[in-house]
Amino acid sequence: MSDSRIFESRFTVGGFQLDSTLHLSLPVLANHIASVASDHAERLGIGRVALLEHRQAWVFSRLLIQMERYPSEYESYTIRSWIDSVSRFFSNRNFAIYDAQGGVIGHAASVWALMDVDSRQALDIKEALPGHADCVAPEHPDCPITRTSRARVTATEPAYTFRPRYCDIDYNGHFNSIRYIEHFLGALPLEVLKERPIHRFEIGYSTECHYDEPLAVYVTAAAADEYDLELRKTDGTVASRAKVILK
Amino acid sequence: MSDSRIFESRFTVGGFQLDSTLHLSLPVLANHIASVASDHAERLGIGRVALLEHRQAWVFSRLLIQMERYPSEYESYTIRSWIDSVSRFFSNRNFAIYDAQGGVIGHAASVWALMDVDSRQALDIKEALPGHADCVAPEHPDCPITRTSRARVTATEPAYTFRPRYCDIDYNGHFNSIRYIEHFLGALPLEVLKERPIHRFEIGYSTECHYDEPLAVYVTAAAADEYDLELRKTDGTVASRAKVILK
Repeated sequence: MSDSRIFESRFTVGGFQLDSTLHLSLPVLANHIASVASDHAERLGIGRVALLEHRQAWVFSRLLIQMERYPSEYESYTIRSWIDSVSRFFSNRNFAIYDAQGGVIGHAASVWALMDVDSRQALDIKEALPGHADCVAPEHPDCPITRTSRARVTATEPAYTFRPRYCDIDYNGHFNSIRYIEHFLGALPLEVLKERPIHRFEIGYSTECHYDEPLAVYVTAAAADEYDLELRKTDGTVASRAKVILK
Repeated sequence: MSDSRIFESRFTVGGFQLDSTLHLSLPVLANHIASVASDHAERLGIGRVALLEHRQAWVFSRLLIQMERYPSEYESYTIRSWIDSVSRFFSNRNFAIYDAQGGVIGHAASVWALMDVDSRQALDIKEALPGHADCVAPEHPDCPITRTSRARVTATEPAYTFRPRYCDIDYNGHFNSIRYIEHFLGALPLEVLKERPIHRFEIGYSTECHYDEPLAVYVTAAAADEYDLELRKTDGTVASRAKVILK
């Protein structure tokens, strides 16, 4: 890219990155989307290492992925990413996903908060990171996906319970944001996910979760092709909400 | 590579592929090792799609990974792989892992069986896949790691129980071999894995596991730096054994 404010990485779907439909699994794609965000932030001078010197870190507030189709085994795809806008408390980073012929196969939109790692409080981005406004890309691809309404969960019994283990935990000692996706999908029946690909996945993060803490996923079928999900702590606190819309 | 019997792929450690020590996580590395094996098999004409036409599939029998060090965030590394030898029932594929300067940072050795996907029985490789012997690389890097003695688990209480969920299941409807590693590591205390990297990880697969089946991991500390693990079904059948040796 000639403009450093737009970044891209190319990936190839490995044989062990498929889900039961023989396409790239959504959690692997989400991991690559998050990695592209990290890589680009690093190059822009606002990555993990640079921020940690000031005791700051980016944390996911929301992530939305909408795919028209998922790449197959050995297929290459490119994730292009840019910071779309920044407000006082949120940086909005968008993504377009292309197949090897350059056709758009999906989009993603992410919202990040800047956190003080000691107080765990959100920081005013314009004050704490004044150069950030210069990182916003003036021209960029379209990202025609919008946030839908909030997930509404009425279920009273959990569909799936677990405690975060070693592989769920990041360097901060917190539950890795991308691993939430695996656990949300783990609460849905395999029969459903085998039959129909996930067209759209939305997740919002509210409260941090920790190693070995008992957590439960509650699911409500909002429509025939739509599931609303909540991840709750034992005291009922909602740690995260998600919505899954099938193709 | 000029000799198609040796294959390599380059990777870069993404920000969301780190474990709590801020290095490439072992399950992500294992996934890439398995993907390199799949990619190479595909190019050799003995990959998943070609084999499935004859109702055959490769299945992991054993995997051993030994790392001198793990790559850090944004560090690039190369996995080189070749088929070392083949016997009647097993194909032995080895791996060397290099940093960006070409220094060896680790090795892996894998043993694969060829299975009839309908009968789930192991096939005689020389009969079922006569061209396989030509895929063995006559010259290749060293892979100076040997299989150690079998894991011996005396624990009577499980350290961790779970049921395989959507993300654990491969296209065959079976528990993805690489996901076993995450669940084995999930049975070890985070404090231990945060302090000392995993020098060596060995896993052997005995019995297939399925979606939503109740499974339990039993752990015995074989030495101060060594854990023996078993994955057992409710009837006591050992589905898999593993050994973890810390650095």
